[in-house]
Amino acid sequence: MVQFVDVAAMSRWMADEGIETLIGDLVAYLESDYRRWEQFDKVARIPAHSEDGVIELMPTADAELYGFKYVNGHPINPSRGLQTVTAFGVLSDMATGYPLMLAEMSLLTALRTAATSAMAARHLARPDSRVHALIGTGSQSEFQALGMRGALGLNELRIWDVDPAAMDKFERNAAALGFTVHRATSAADAVAGADVVTTCTADKVNATVLHGDVIEPGMHLNAIGGDSPGKTELDAAILLRADTFVEFHPQTFIEGEIQNLPEDHPTIDLWRVVDGQLPGRTSADQVTVFDSVGFAINDFSALRFVRDRVSGTAYAAEIDLIAEPADPKDLFSVVSLAPAATSR
Amino acid sequence: MVQFVDVAAMSRWMADEGIETLIGDLVAYLESDYRRWEQFDKVARIPAHSEDGVIELMPTADAELYGFKYVNGHPINPSRGLQTVTAFGVLSDMATGYPLMLAEMSLLTALRTAATSAMAARHLARPDSRVHALIGTGSQSEFQALGMRGALGLNELRIWDVDPAAMDKFERNAAALGFTVHRATSAADAVAGADVVTTCTADKVNATVLHGDVIEPGMHLNAIGGDSPGKTELDAAILLRADTFVEFHPQTFIEGEIQNLPEDHPTIDLWRVVDGQLPGRTSADQVTVFDSVGFAINDFSALRFVRDRVSGTAYAAEIDLIAEPADPKDLFSVVSLAPAATSR
Repeated sequence: MVQFVDVAAMSRWMADEGIETLIGDLVAYLESDYRRWEQFDKVARIPAHSEDGVIELMPTADAELYGFKYVNGHPINPSRGLQTVTAFGVLSDMATGYPLMLAEMSLLTALRTAATSAMAARHLARPDSRVHALIGTGSQSEFQALGMRGALGLNELRIWDVDPAAMDKFERNAAALGFTVHRATSAADAVAGADVVTTCTADKVNATVLHGDVIEPGMHLNAIGGDSPGKTELDAAILLRADTFVEFHPQTFIEGEIQNLPEDHPTIDLWRVVDGQLPGRTSADQVTVFDSVGFAINDFSALRFVRDRVSGTAYAAEIDLIAEPADPKDLFSVVSLAPAATSR
Repeated sequence: MVQFVDVAAMSRWMADEGIETLIGDLVAYLESDYRRWEQFDKVARIPAHSEDGVIELMPTADAELYGFKYVNGHPINPSRGLQTVTAFGVLSDMATGYPLMLAEMSLLTALRTAATSAMAARHLARPDSRVHALIGTGSQSEFQALGMRGALGLNELRIWDVDPAAMDKFERNAAALGFTVHRATSAADAVAGADVVTTCTADKVNATVLHGDVIEPGMHLNAIGGDSPGKTELDAAILLRADTFVEFHPQTFIEGEIQNLPEDHPTIDLWRVVDGQLPGRTSADQVTVFDSVGFAINDFSALRFVRDRVSGTAYAAEIDLIAEPADPKDLFSVVSLAPAATSR
């Protein structure tokens, strides 16, 4: 039997444990895996593009475990009452090839994206950061706000979204979470005076959510919305002025903000910073950009985290995903000896 | 909600409908998809290798549907009481990116591999074929025997396996299915007098299950066990003498029998034969090899087939895999409004 964490169980678990606490705990898993980056099989995720979106598979493995995530990105979906991003993932045993756990990952992706942002910000944002600007207040936004508060204590938010209803929604949720929220009148207004800026918009175009002239010395930009070919958020001028940190360059160059720059534009591997091989922020004036697209190892860490925490608890159900004949070479017997329909 | 066909449901469905009938019906789905081969996104499957096996993801898509299979291949597994191959797959809506169906595919892979073999044999085997040799009587073997009987009427089997217990198992199952079975004393003995030869062994080595001198004019070889780098079954001399048909050359050259030949060794795309663009067998003396490794489109056809047949029936359950907040931009509410644990 394979363990299964469905949406109801994942949401109950997150509610019981607290999202901010879980993000903090997940950062430790991420850091542990980033520090052993070279032990993983790595490949740029495999996309299937359509006019309105993309479906991607994101596999990775170390010597013991294999993980992959299925994720879609369809910015048009909310206009149809659907989520932009849905996801699920599987963790498997490399020794046998057997799946161990299937988990919903729509919620878990929001958690891991916030944890990855938090991990990066701890190395890249100024330690005296106080104000967090959020450009885009959709599905990921509350998780991002909680992640940055956990990592850096940022309780003061400046928000902007082209959709007023999305800002209304965010303000309601953020008030209940104890944030101080300033509703800005534009992206530039939101960014004014911010120390950390998270861009988490979704539109399948090369947008310019932020222009170069709004960036101040010392800012850290956490750019998570540009994550697919032809889907970016930042003015290239920002990247030319900043130091840019990436998860996995071969994938980020296809999907991230740097797709708008020449391939030899210098970037810094985040894992080397986490591992202490390279510095993160080196001065109070430096502008840092985390050009986050979401990499398979982030999801691997999240699946590993969930498994460690929910295995054997009521949050984990079991599903009948693996045929298990008494004689392993007699797969046919699973059909020939199938119990009658009345017993189902 | 996502439809879910678990092992119990899949086995019950196959038992109710009959494997031989289902293979025949699936051939029609395969042929339909092979005839529109150029409409699919195609990529060689993405492997993660370990010492004892491999885990692979096999995605493909047309304009409407996306499908992928997770499959492992661990030849060592039966010695541990486990299946060599386990699999599951998902069919999704390209327009929304939402998964539609999750299905076990250990049984379904056996069905689709037999259906693919049957489809190829109808074009490549001599129409007057009478005797089917099976080298390897493991998990796939009964399905292969039924597929060839459905396609060509081959009721006479000659079998060989290095594991006598696997031959005992096969003989029991085949007797119940009405086959006439001759238990050979070697692979060469099994092949003697056979018109169609299926090799379905599993060992993670470049084996020589069949030597060139056992091949007779007019034979069709259905080579399904060589399907991974360093895992082949046939003497290269056989390939040099035969015409070789493949599913998708970029993948087959990595994984199939032709990995032991130069990359420019000529092969023929099976889909072009199915589509009538190229001939299959052209003479009674020709030796044909279907160098089958299993391609994503085969699984896509199988998933499409299962969905068409079991949607809305008792064979399909529902699982809670997709977060569905009332406001699609309020993913956070799935956690903040999560029902209390006592209601689960």
